[in-house]
Amino acid sequence: MRKDRQKDRKGSRRGRLVNQLGETQLVETILSRFCGEGTRRVLVGPGDDAAVVKLDRGSPLILTTDVLVEGTHFSLDFSYPEAIGFKAVTANLSDVAAMGGQPFGIVVSLGIPRTIPVRAVNRIYAGISRALSLFGGELLGGDTVRSRAVTVCVSAVGELVGKTPFLRSGARPGDAICVTGTLGGSEMGLKLLKKYFKGKPRSRDSSLTSWSDRTAGYFREKLPASVRKNGHACISRHLLPRPRVTEAGVLSSYDLSAAIDISDGLLIDVARIAKASDVGVLLREEQVPVSRDCEAVARSLGVSAYDVALSSGEEYEILFAVAPAKVRQITRTLANRCGTGVTVLGEVVEKRRGAFVAGRRGRRKRLLERGFEHF
Amino acid sequence: MRKDRQKDRKGSRRGRLVNQLGETQLVETILSRFCGEGTRRVLVGPGDDAAVVKLDRGSPLILTTDVLVEGTHFSLDFSYPEAIGFKAVTANLSDVAAMGGQPFGIVVSLGIPRTIPVRAVNRIYAGISRALSLFGGELLGGDTVRSRAVTVCVSAVGELVGKTPFLRSGARPGDAICVTGTLGGSEMGLKLLKKYFKGKPRSRDSSLTSWSDRTAGYFREKLPASVRKNGHACISRHLLPRPRVTEAGVLSSYDLSAAIDISDGLLIDVARIAKASDVGVLLREEQVPVSRDCEAVARSLGVSAYDVALSSGEEYEILFAVAPAKVRQITRTLANRCGTGVTVLGEVVEKRRGAFVAGRRGRRKRLLERGFEHF
Repeated sequence: MRKDRQKDRKGSRRGRLVNQLGETQLVETILSRFCGEGTRRVLVGPGDDAAVVKLDRGSPLILTTDVLVEGTHFSLDFSYPEAIGFKAVTANLSDVAAMGGQPFGIVVSLGIPRTIPVRAVNRIYAGISRALSLFGGELLGGDTVRSRAVTVCVSAVGELVGKTPFLRSGARPGDAICVTGTLGGSEMGLKLLKKYFKGKPRSRDSSLTSWSDRTAGYFREKLPASVRKNGHACISRHLLPRPRVTEAGVLSSYDLSAAIDISDGLLIDVARIAKASDVGVLLREEQVPVSRDCEAVARSLGVSAYDVALSSGEEYEILFAVAPAKVRQITRTLANRCGTGVTVLGEVVEKRRGAFVAGRRGRRKRLLERGFEHF
Repeated sequence: MRKDRQKDRKGSRRGRLVNQLGETQLVETILSRFCGEGTRRVLVGPGDDAAVVKLDRGSPLILTTDVLVEGTHFSLDFSYPEAIGFKAVTANLSDVAAMGGQPFGIVVSLGIPRTIPVRAVNRIYAGISRALSLFGGELLGGDTVRSRAVTVCVSAVGELVGKTPFLRSGARPGDAICVTGTLGGSEMGLKLLKKYFKGKPRSRDSSLTSWSDRTAGYFREKLPASVRKNGHACISRHLLPRPRVTEAGVLSSYDLSAAIDISDGLLIDVARIAKASDVGVLLREEQVPVSRDCEAVARSLGVSAYDVALSSGEEYEILFAVAPAKVRQITRTLANRCGTGVTVLGEVVEKRRGAFVAGRRGRRKRLLERGFEHF
């Protein structure tokens, strides 16, 4: 009897676990409990792609952080060192871009196991350097520590280009919903990695060594000839995503109503804009700009390229809402200045009409604002 | 024979591992390979306590990052959730202070296991909030992800107060070497935790649950009565270190030659100033301001309080070099404005005279610039 009481007490003392609550709700709890309105300095606090802080003089500052953890965000079997450094940087630069900013620096906290080869560490930093030289920003500082899992935590700072940041919350009924570039490549790349590169269980040390030696060429060679070319393009898109920093600079001249970068998938990120802006959305599936590489691989694998494109995360395209009258000018300028396409996916509607995507075969799917649940 | 060749090739392919190279040399490799001179914007790049970046207008920006990883920087047996959040913040604020800055915001990337109780996450954030409300800065944003080990990565931004940052590299022969506050408490706290709180091997889940429920009171109660009061003060100093942010604000009015925060121990951090400034140093052990709590516990345990104070890391006191003529004024102002003591530990000398600490019994110890080797 006493034992039972103890057990009960232990059960209730244990309380709810993080995996029972889920990531979205956990983040909401933290936001509501620990993030107040902020001072007058904080123009945008937690809850958007990045924070925006007013300084006494000069442009507002944009600040963001993102961490990649082995086993959660990437697998040693599916990646190589440069790619991890590269992606950790570009995920952050994309957040700065999605607020309408230009990055000028990063700091890196790198967690690595004791038995990782030194050249792997150098190659992670080579990927970090490469991303900075392509998209802007300097390596300002960092911390290197021991950790069981390879962990790359990057924080980026940038400056706001226009007068006000692009928020998730400004979309208005009547706005066009647009996206830069094409979608689907990243998710298709991950599918191929899972299909063809799932390693047999090995010792940790031998996994780290293979990982340390692997390059982009390894993935290309091991793909079946039937999907090699397009498949490798998808894998590159997944492993080495390109943030739309230059495009964000151009978009800053236009009065966008709302913007977000596609990090968790089009449907989820559109739903986030809808929720933050308190509006409805109607997307047309046939408008979604599916990447050609994704389409070609989808045909080989016999899956729907549209389904892949609608849910593909880590694309880092910019999704935005803007008055329809401005779309033509934006499209022309982005094509001329960056060689980047813009597609109108649908429109912002009144909230009571809900958030839906109209499928190609008359299907109608409700959009749910629910991120990937990592827990 | 073929097998031997393969083995050899594997051996050489494996290359040097991080634990063979060591942390100091690893960081030096990274700095020399991936961090250039920087642009004109970067006033201080990697290698000091924090980076300093010039903005087009307004005060230069200070940026730093620090990560605490369970199993490397803390043990679940020796800590509790608020303390981890608190220390992750104060480690960063201390770096901002050591450059002569005042922090205004942080971003947090939190890695947590799936089976951690939600209340532990809330308590980590409560510790983060508490540190910010005591020492300045706002929680601007973050990322919460799944990770096997509890990992708290904080990046802080601040503004430079004076005209130029406090560097490690400006100490000149003739300068006095000074330190704020007292030393030894943090290391003695860790010694007590290791002596009295080393847990029996338990399941991961039960360790996480005990950790989630533990408070500061637990450590106090479990200490033997003979060391309870002073011992608990030492443990608090170790678990909840206080960065010298206000003191840094005052010190910014004086033309310090060099400064660093004591994060890896007095001897190591003095040696870092000596190396960066290309000078020698002569410290007098009997001048070291040993904390009273450390002294009292040292007597009980029969160890040398001086030895503990010389090597005690995570003290977050500010160690600085300054022209001797200014010491009296600095001492008076810090006492009046912050209630914080200043002690002269010795002097900066010509490089050829070396870096030594003169012991109380005629011992002479060479100072080595060698951080804690985490690998």
